[in-house]
Amino acid sequence: MDTTKQQGGPATAHGARSPAETSARLVDPLGDPRSTQSLTPLQDLHGIITPSGLHFERHHAGVPQIKPEAHRLLLHGLVNDAKIFTVEDIKRFPATTKNYFIECSGNGYREWNGPIGQSVQETHGLTSCSEWTGVPLKHLLGEAHIAPGAAWVVAEGADGAAMTRSVPLDKCLDDVLVAYAQNGEMLRPEQGYPLRLLVPGWEGNISVKWLRRLKVVDRPYQTREETSKYTDLMPDGSAKQFTFVMHAKSVITYPSGKHKLPGPGFYEIRGLAWSGRGRITRVEVSTDDGASWQECRLQGPVLDKCHTRFSCDWRWQGKATIIQSRCTDESGYRQSTRTELQAAQGKLPSYHYNAIQRWRIDASGEASNV
Amino acid sequence: MDTTKQQGGPATAHGARSPAETSARLVDPLGDPRSTQSLTPLQDLHGIITPSGLHFERHHAGVPQIKPEAHRLLLHGLVNDAKIFTVEDIKRFPATTKNYFIECSGNGYREWNGPIGQSVQETHGLTSCSEWTGVPLKHLLGEAHIAPGAAWVVAEGADGAAMTRSVPLDKCLDDVLVAYAQNGEMLRPEQGYPLRLLVPGWEGNISVKWLRRLKVVDRPYQTREETSKYTDLMPDGSAKQFTFVMHAKSVITYPSGKHKLPGPGFYEIRGLAWSGRGRITRVEVSTDDGASWQECRLQGPVLDKCHTRFSCDWRWQGKATIIQSRCTDESGYRQSTRTELQAAQGKLPSYHYNAIQRWRIDASGEASNV
Repeated sequence: MDTTKQQGGPATAHGARSPAETSARLVDPLGDPRSTQSLTPLQDLHGIITPSGLHFERHHAGVPQIKPEAHRLLLHGLVNDAKIFTVEDIKRFPATTKNYFIECSGNGYREWNGPIGQSVQETHGLTSCSEWTGVPLKHLLGEAHIAPGAAWVVAEGADGAAMTRSVPLDKCLDDVLVAYAQNGEMLRPEQGYPLRLLVPGWEGNISVKWLRRLKVVDRPYQTREETSKYTDLMPDGSAKQFTFVMHAKSVITYPSGKHKLPGPGFYEIRGLAWSGRGRITRVEVSTDDGASWQECRLQGPVLDKCHTRFSCDWRWQGKATIIQSRCTDESGYRQSTRTELQAAQGKLPSYHYNAIQRWRIDASGEASNV
Repeated sequence: MDTTKQQGGPATAHGARSPAETSARLVDPLGDPRSTQSLTPLQDLHGIITPSGLHFERHHAGVPQIKPEAHRLLLHGLVNDAKIFTVEDIKRFPATTKNYFIECSGNGYREWNGPIGQSVQETHGLTSCSEWTGVPLKHLLGEAHIAPGAAWVVAEGADGAAMTRSVPLDKCLDDVLVAYAQNGEMLRPEQGYPLRLLVPGWEGNISVKWLRRLKVVDRPYQTREETSKYTDLMPDGSAKQFTFVMHAKSVITYPSGKHKLPGPGFYEIRGLAWSGRGRITRVEVSTDDGASWQECRLQGPVLDKCHTRFSCDWRWQGKATIIQSRCTDESGYRQSTRTELQAAQGKLPSYHYNAIQRWRIDASGEASNV
């Protein structure tokens, strides 16, 4: 069919992908119907924006259907002027737009003691990156006039889990947003429509979705997700609580598990790096099982607490090898190996897994997790 | 319905908007079924990314359905090594990702002699902004080895119009991309899937979609779109050709035509500014029919040839007034009034309309184009 010899399709009110494009989130990778998660296909993506329809999901009681005109956000507790906001009220405040990653602290959980996931979607697909727009929480707190003794804010969602987390007040007065838009349009339902908390650089669970309540309090509330989950079990049997920050992490997305190189020759190795502590300052790649490392290009602008695309040139000779990346952030923290992580935190699988990811390229060009 | 008392919906392979969100492109605003365009709903958008499904469309013979595995890009003419690339070949070259606006040079055409469009979608909806990924054209030209005498590149699309434009070689060796991805995923069909030329800052028509051929030549080829269209008719009857650069432009998107302010009080005036000559350096807003102007906030990072979100605070007293914005870019160019534009270029409606947009706010809060 010669497309130059015929009239094409009409303009449309809302566009969709080509039928040839079938990239999809991986739903329920553990085969458990109670598991409500889906993973982003990082191996298929370009740049740093995750298309909203492919942003990973993690919810504890499914995605509620919320009518935006009926939704309310209550701000109360240790404030002098408790407030109830409609979504339209929230949108009238001065808005801020920033690109931020959101990563589930359980991203890579299964990799703690050895390679399990076959593709980068399975090993790293619980991170995504969007342009978020919302009102800085400090503006709302300013309207409510914080009372003496305030030290934390408890955020509650309107989902079936009534997801509830405690956030230190200092962070709330810093860069936390009450977000209503993602990648230019209103939030998607699975991202908290119509309102979500957005706590930049911290574990995804604390960016409470379907946000309906903010209570200013004097201490953390030890909610279910702060005791039974989202704590880090240490080798001595104790558990660290409130380990909020997502450590620096990088991963090669091309070539990565399940990819097959068509033959020896030039390849651009590509990947993503990010840190909850700020900007990525350096990414290095090794293509010889760690014997040597080369400096990568970082695609600018390199943004704070945001996915950063890195790349480097590689001429593959057609022999089996192992490729891997490691990143450094502006705090000076450098990503470590699995062995180093186990030495520091023990061998029980836990949250905040951020070790270097190694991909084996075999002589046929097939990539696999090692 | 209390959404906290029930299980929500499952995780899904590909997400969609809430049914409550119905923002749409405006198709065929002139009521002509041969018109193949749709306009972006700027009044509904946040930040700078245009959701891909809402990116404006302009095509001269409809949207072709192209099978990516069958698509080829021919690079020939004044080169020593003509090439035929598959889409996979193109994706193997070192990639670049940048945020750029694309604006049709006909954006605002009907406004040349007075206010016509009712909403900002009608007056300015032929501009959109995306994160684009592709290979710098200079890399492809490097592979083909340019021959002596080369001065222009003719780009041809695979659509029913076989859209063909001449691009100066200097620009091709500067920042032109052969793009394959938009906002993280492969291009949408109406944006040129699987390959398009991306000529940053220049009139949208030259960013040839469904790109199938690049011919290196010694002069512009005077194609149909360079003679019968996309020329600027001057008062003396002559026509300027190859007026590529999109001049600096800004527009208030909130409040804008068809919006209605609910009552006196605080508002954040919001809008977009952009320039084909580089970065926006300044946006000013007047809320008193031009008597005074205030400096706006620019949401960073402010990027080259990219939509820039501006905002300023406004306390509306409930009286009728006129609001407007004007921007300045890093070349020093400042957006002018309609009267100034007419004095320079005459009164015949033409391409490259970029005058200051004025919105009247009447005493009831209704906004309209004046």
